[in-house]
Amino acid sequence: MKEIKIGFIGLGCRGSSLLKDVILPQKEQVTAVCDTYPDRANLGADLVQAAGQPRPHVYTDAMEVIRDENVTVIIIASAWESHTDLAAAAMYAKKAVAMEVGGAYTLKQCTDLVEAYEKTQTPFMFLENCCFGRREMMVLNMVRQGLLGEIVHCAGGYQHDLRKEVAYGKENRHYRLRNYLSRNCENYPTHDLGPIAKILDINHGNRMVTLTSTASKAAGLHDYIVRNKPDDEVLKNKSFAQGDVVTTVIKCARGETIVLTLDTTLPRYYSRNFTVRGTRGMYEEVTDSVFLDQESDLAHDFDWRDTNVNNAKSYEEQYDHPVWKQYLSEGVKGTHDGMDYLEFQTFFQALRSNSPMPVDVYDAAAWMAVTVLSEMSIARGGAVVDIPDFTNGKWNREEMI
Amino acid sequence: MKEIKIGFIGLGCRGSSLLKDVILPQKEQVTAVCDTYPDRANLGADLVQAAGQPRPHVYTDAMEVIRDENVTVIIIASAWESHTDLAAAAMYAKKAVAMEVGGAYTLKQCTDLVEAYEKTQTPFMFLENCCFGRREMMVLNMVRQGLLGEIVHCAGGYQHDLRKEVAYGKENRHYRLRNYLSRNCENYPTHDLGPIAKILDINHGNRMVTLTSTASKAAGLHDYIVRNKPDDEVLKNKSFAQGDVVTTVIKCARGETIVLTLDTTLPRYYSRNFTVRGTRGMYEEVTDSVFLDQESDLAHDFDWRDTNVNNAKSYEEQYDHPVWKQYLSEGVKGTHDGMDYLEFQTFFQALRSNSPMPVDVYDAAAWMAVTVLSEMSIARGGAVVDIPDFTNGKWNREEMI
Repeated sequence: MKEIKIGFIGLGCRGSSLLKDVILPQKEQVTAVCDTYPDRANLGADLVQAAGQPRPHVYTDAMEVIRDENVTVIIIASAWESHTDLAAAAMYAKKAVAMEVGGAYTLKQCTDLVEAYEKTQTPFMFLENCCFGRREMMVLNMVRQGLLGEIVHCAGGYQHDLRKEVAYGKENRHYRLRNYLSRNCENYPTHDLGPIAKILDINHGNRMVTLTSTASKAAGLHDYIVRNKPDDEVLKNKSFAQGDVVTTVIKCARGETIVLTLDTTLPRYYSRNFTVRGTRGMYEEVTDSVFLDQESDLAHDFDWRDTNVNNAKSYEEQYDHPVWKQYLSEGVKGTHDGMDYLEFQTFFQALRSNSPMPVDVYDAAAWMAVTVLSEMSIARGGAVVDIPDFTNGKWNREEMI
Repeated sequence: MKEIKIGFIGLGCRGSSLLKDVILPQKEQVTAVCDTYPDRANLGADLVQAAGQPRPHVYTDAMEVIRDENVTVIIIASAWESHTDLAAAAMYAKKAVAMEVGGAYTLKQCTDLVEAYEKTQTPFMFLENCCFGRREMMVLNMVRQGLLGEIVHCAGGYQHDLRKEVAYGKENRHYRLRNYLSRNCENYPTHDLGPIAKILDINHGNRMVTLTSTASKAAGLHDYIVRNKPDDEVLKNKSFAQGDVVTTVIKCARGETIVLTLDTTLPRYYSRNFTVRGTRGMYEEVTDSVFLDQESDLAHDFDWRDTNVNNAKSYEEQYDHPVWKQYLSEGVKGTHDGMDYLEFQTFFQALRSNSPMPVDVYDAAAWMAVTVLSEMSIARGGAVVDIPDFTNGKWNREEMI
C-alpha cells in the first residue's frame, strides 16, 4: 500500500476513543470521518485537528466515505448492524478494511464478507483486540511450546455489567438497547472466542463443528430499570428478549470443547473468564494462575489452588509472547492495557508490508456466525446447530500459523 | 423410629472414612458391616470394635444385611452401580436408608427408587453432603432473605483431578476405572447440583425441564498413564470413553439456567465452582466473593473484583445459616470441613423425630437422572433431552421449603 489515508466510520464511545487514543498517536493520516449523527462526526474531525492534522472531510453517510478518492483505508467502528455491509462495500471499492467486532445478524452477512474478500483480495482485518492481550498471547506462546500438553477444553466470555449502558441506550444513542430488546443470543462472542480460536488452530487445521446455546430468563435489566430509572415509563414497561446469561458450548473437529458465556445484565465484576485446559497444564484468568504437571506433584492435592493463585505474572519473563516482549521494550500505549494500540500497529504494519492479516476474514465469519447460530439454538430450546465452514474446506489444507 | 441399628454397606475409601470419622463418633450403634471384599468388611468391623462397640456381623452380600433382623437402618456407600437396587430393597424391607451420591445408569433406577419410597413410605435420605456445606448454606440463607434478588443463573461442578485414582483403579479396586473406560457422561452431578437445586426450589415450585450435554475428547487419562504408569501394558493401550470435560446446561421451568461441569481428568485444583447469580447480587466460590448492588455503586467499575475477592467470610457473622451457627457453637466435627458430620446428624435426628428428610427420594431421582440424560445427549451430539418429572406433578403443588 502506497499511502494510508484513513476514512474513520463511527464516532460513538468506542470509535472516538480508538481515534483519539490509538490511531492518531500512531501518526496515521485521517482524511475523512463519519457518523450518522453530525455532532459526533464533527467531534471526530475536532480530534483529528487537535492532533495537528488538516481537518478531515466530515460525512454522515458512510457510503460516501467509501467512495471518497482521498481515502485508502476504511476503519469501521459504527453500530453492529452496519459492519459487514460497509466492510464488503469497502473491499469492492478496493479500500483496505479494519472492522470492529460484534456478532452477525444472518449467516449471509458472513458469506458476503468472505465473498467480497475472495473476489477482491482486499486487505481485511477483524479488530478482535483480545487476540492482542498480553495474557492471551502469553498463554498462546506457552501452548505452542507444548507446556500445557494437548489442549482439550477452553472457556471464555464477555462478562461485563452493562446494565447502565443498556438502560441509558436511548439517551446515549447506543445500539445495544435495541439489540437487547429484540434479540436473544450470544450477542458478543469474539471476546474471548478470538484468542481461543487462535489457540485451537480454528481455520488452520481445526474448525468449529456444532454448538448448542441456552439462555436464562431476562430479569436483570427490568429489575435495574425499575430501581434506577423509575420515571422512564416506556422502558419500565418493556420486556427484554435478551436472556441475562447465555451459555454456548462449541464442539471442534479435533474434539475440543469451548464454553462461551455472555453475561452482561446482572451484577458482577468484569471478566473474560479466559481458560485453557490441556493434558499437562492449565491457565485460568479468574485466579490469574498457571498449573503445570511438571512443576508439581500436588496434582491431587487440595492445596494446589492456594499456592498458585495469581502466579501467572511469574511466567511473564520467560513466556511473554515475543511480540509483547518487543512492545514492552518500546513502551505500551493506548487503551485496554495496550492491546488496542498493538492491534492497530499490527494492522498498519501488515498494510505497509502487504503481509497477511493476523485476524482475517475467515476468522471474522466463523466467530461472528456464533451469534446467529446461538440465536437459532436458543429459539429451538438449545438444539444442536451446525457451524458452517466459511473456508470451504481450506481449514484442513492450510499449515498451522 | 425406636432404635437405630446400622447396617453399613461399602467399606472402600469413602465408606470406611464415613464410618470411622462421622458415624461412630456420633455414638450410633453399628450392628452389621458389609463389603464384597472380605478384607474391607473385616476392617470395617475392626473400626466398630475400636470405637467400643460389640463386633458387628460381617457380610459380603449386601442383601443379607438388608435381611438381618438386627438392622433397622441401611447406609449405602458401595460402588455407584449398586446404590439404587440396594436402596429400593431396603425400603421394601422397611429399613430406613441413607444412600451415598453418584449418578444413575438408567432412568428406571430413578423411578424404581421413587416407587419403592411411595409404596413403602420408608425414610430415605440422599447423602449429598454439599447441601450441608457452610458456604452453600450461607448463600441459600442470603437467597431466602432476598439479598441476591431474583435468581437467574447458577453454576457448579465436580472439578477434581482424579487421574491418579482412576489410573490406579485396578490396584485400589475402585469402580471409577470401569466407569471411565466405558461411559461418557456427567458421571458425578450432585456436587454442586444439590445445593443449586435447593436454591432454585427444584421439586418445590420449580423443576429442571431440559438439558444439553457436551463432552470434550478424552485425552487426559491416556497421557497421564503413558507418563506415570509406563509399565501398565493393559491400561496404556486402552481408550477411555469418558471425555475430560463435560459441560451440561440445564433449563428450569421458571427460566433459570444451571451449568454443570465434570472436570476430573486434567490437571487442576479442586473446586465445586459454586456460583449463584441474581438480579441484585452474586456469590462465586472461585474467588469466594459476594457482590451486592446495595453495597456498591461500582456496578460498572473494573475495580469491583479486586475490592471483593475473598470477602465472603465477612458475611458469615450475619448470614451463616442458623443450622451452621448452632453447629459452630457446638463444635464442628468430622470430614470435609464438617459437612459430613452435619449431614448424618441431620439424618439421625430426622429418623428419631420422624421428620421429613432434607434431601429426599425426589431429589435423588432428579439429580441422579442427570447422568443418564447427559449420556444420551452426548451420544446424540449435544441434543436437547427432556428431564422427567419424578414428582409426577407434585413439584408445582408443594410449598417451598
